[in-house]
Amino acid sequence: MRLLDDRAPGAHDALRTLYPKTGAAQIIGITGNPGSGKSTLVDQLITQYRKLDKRVGVVAVDPSSPFSGGAILGDRIRMMDHAVDPDVFIRSMATRGQLGGLSRSTDDVVVVLDAMGFDIILVETVGVGQDEIDIIRTVQTSVVVMVPGLGDDIQAIKAGILEIADVFVVNKADRDGADRTVKDLKYMQSLASKHPEWCVPIVRTIATQGGGLAELMETIDSHQTHLQGSDKHHERSRSREAHLLRNALRDQLGQRIDGLLEADGYGDTLVEALVNRQLDPYTAATQAIQKLFSESE
Amino acid sequence: MRLLDDRAPGAHDALRTLYPKTGAAQIIGITGNPGSGKSTLVDQLITQYRKLDKRVGVVAVDPSSPFSGGAILGDRIRMMDHAVDPDVFIRSMATRGQLGGLSRSTDDVVVVLDAMGFDIILVETVGVGQDEIDIIRTVQTSVVVMVPGLGDDIQAIKAGILEIADVFVVNKADRDGADRTVKDLKYMQSLASKHPEWCVPIVRTIATQGGGLAELMETIDSHQTHLQGSDKHHERSRSREAHLLRNALRDQLGQRIDGLLEADGYGDTLVEALVNRQLDPYTAATQAIQKLFSESE
Repeated sequence: MRLLDDRAPGAHDALRTLYPKTGAAQIIGITGNPGSGKSTLVDQLITQYRKLDKRVGVVAVDPSSPFSGGAILGDRIRMMDHAVDPDVFIRSMATRGQLGGLSRSTDDVVVVLDAMGFDIILVETVGVGQDEIDIIRTVQTSVVVMVPGLGDDIQAIKAGILEIADVFVVNKADRDGADRTVKDLKYMQSLASKHPEWCVPIVRTIATQGGGLAELMETIDSHQTHLQGSDKHHERSRSREAHLLRNALRDQLGQRIDGLLEADGYGDTLVEALVNRQLDPYTAATQAIQKLFSESE
Repeated sequence: MRLLDDRAPGAHDALRTLYPKTGAAQIIGITGNPGSGKSTLVDQLITQYRKLDKRVGVVAVDPSSPFSGGAILGDRIRMMDHAVDPDVFIRSMATRGQLGGLSRSTDDVVVVLDAMGFDIILVETVGVGQDEIDIIRTVQTSVVVMVPGLGDDIQAIKAGILEIADVFVVNKADRDGADRTVKDLKYMQSLASKHPEWCVPIVRTIATQGGGLAELMETIDSHQTHLQGSDKHHERSRSREAHLLRNALRDQLGQRIDGLLEADGYGDTLVEALVNRQLDPYTAATQAIQKLFSESE
């Protein structure tokens, strides 16, 4: 019974060594439904940032559920245009492991890319699941991609989006319903303007043709500049560090508990007692933790 | 900086008391995309099980992401037909909290319903995110609902589904493409028949009209009977108990760490050192855990 996925031996030491070199990268999240065209947008952003001679890392997070949908494979194949460019690094994350595994693996890759001197790190997510929300909360600029005419404009524009978005993109803006989507977004903003210091801009793009890309990049830049000039930047940094610390704590405590449970079949004995209702999970956990503390003295 | 969502004080004691009374309920998972009609199916299953005089509990899990979609509200309103029936209990879970929060809350509700003597517990999930996959793995019979003609037949039928499904439902079976979906499912099964002792049945339903419901219930019954007669039942029980133990461990360790981090602003101090790159998260976690162990001696 393991609490955690394995991490390669030595990974901690590597991350410890790399960590002091991090902190310079711009970490940008791109979140959108499957079918929103966010991968095409990421693809275009890579091309544009490369023209500015920026080194670009991409971490594409796929919750890898049977229902996650999205043409992940096709997207990744399309991105292979950039595969021969040494200043572009693309990594798909697909972990169906224990809780926190996806978030932790993504953190690790971002730390490595940051330390390696990538200027821009694009974190692409579908935006479902707590793990992913957790990831999105730690980027500096969070771009949320919507698409008109999916028939769920109102549903998709839930209040939750306003909390995590720094920039809205209405992609496929040449489609019917784009005006409606923009209008709905503006209306939602007027209801819940929690960020008086930053009114979340709405950018229209047609990613397949590169339309609106220049404006999107300017908008991301403006947000980064806004962050630098406000307390927000420090706040986001703290939030990101707290997130990394939480994951590291979960990780290391998990390893200790795993060691305890695996020694002498202790975990199996506990589970058997649970199956037979001789013990309940809450008391079993308390006993295991007491054992852990007493053995570490 | 908190590792965990709060649980109401005394909840642990209540769960400890209730636990020995659990183990009799049939725990059935219903997983499907938004739009697959799984809520209608759940609604119909409630009606049918009530006709058999079974008490029915429903836990509807919504990862509550901005993109989760699905007419959760509408579904819940429809289910209010059953709201006046004291032998039906419906609870929507929507936690956008820390990792594991959703899985843990769902566990708690299932434990309570089981102890209260509900015969059937239906756990309804969208099937996205690690938290949800974790939940699905702990039910006794996992029903996966597909729907024809969403244009993503091949994508949706990923190998992962075969791992978690005990029963396939092709809902909206009067739609074009139903035969194709069934055929695709059978083809996938022929490729990856990991369960020689249980060939996952494919049931066609038209949930809005109650079509195929009788067959679905028979199939669920067959699977439950199959479980009873095989090692599988013990294996699933162990898997469920191990899951509950893991969550309880995560919970209680998290509380201890939260206590440590909140005392004298210790967590804030660590985070500040991280922001200034005087410390890395992995070393900070190690220090915090050492402090925790030394203080508990």
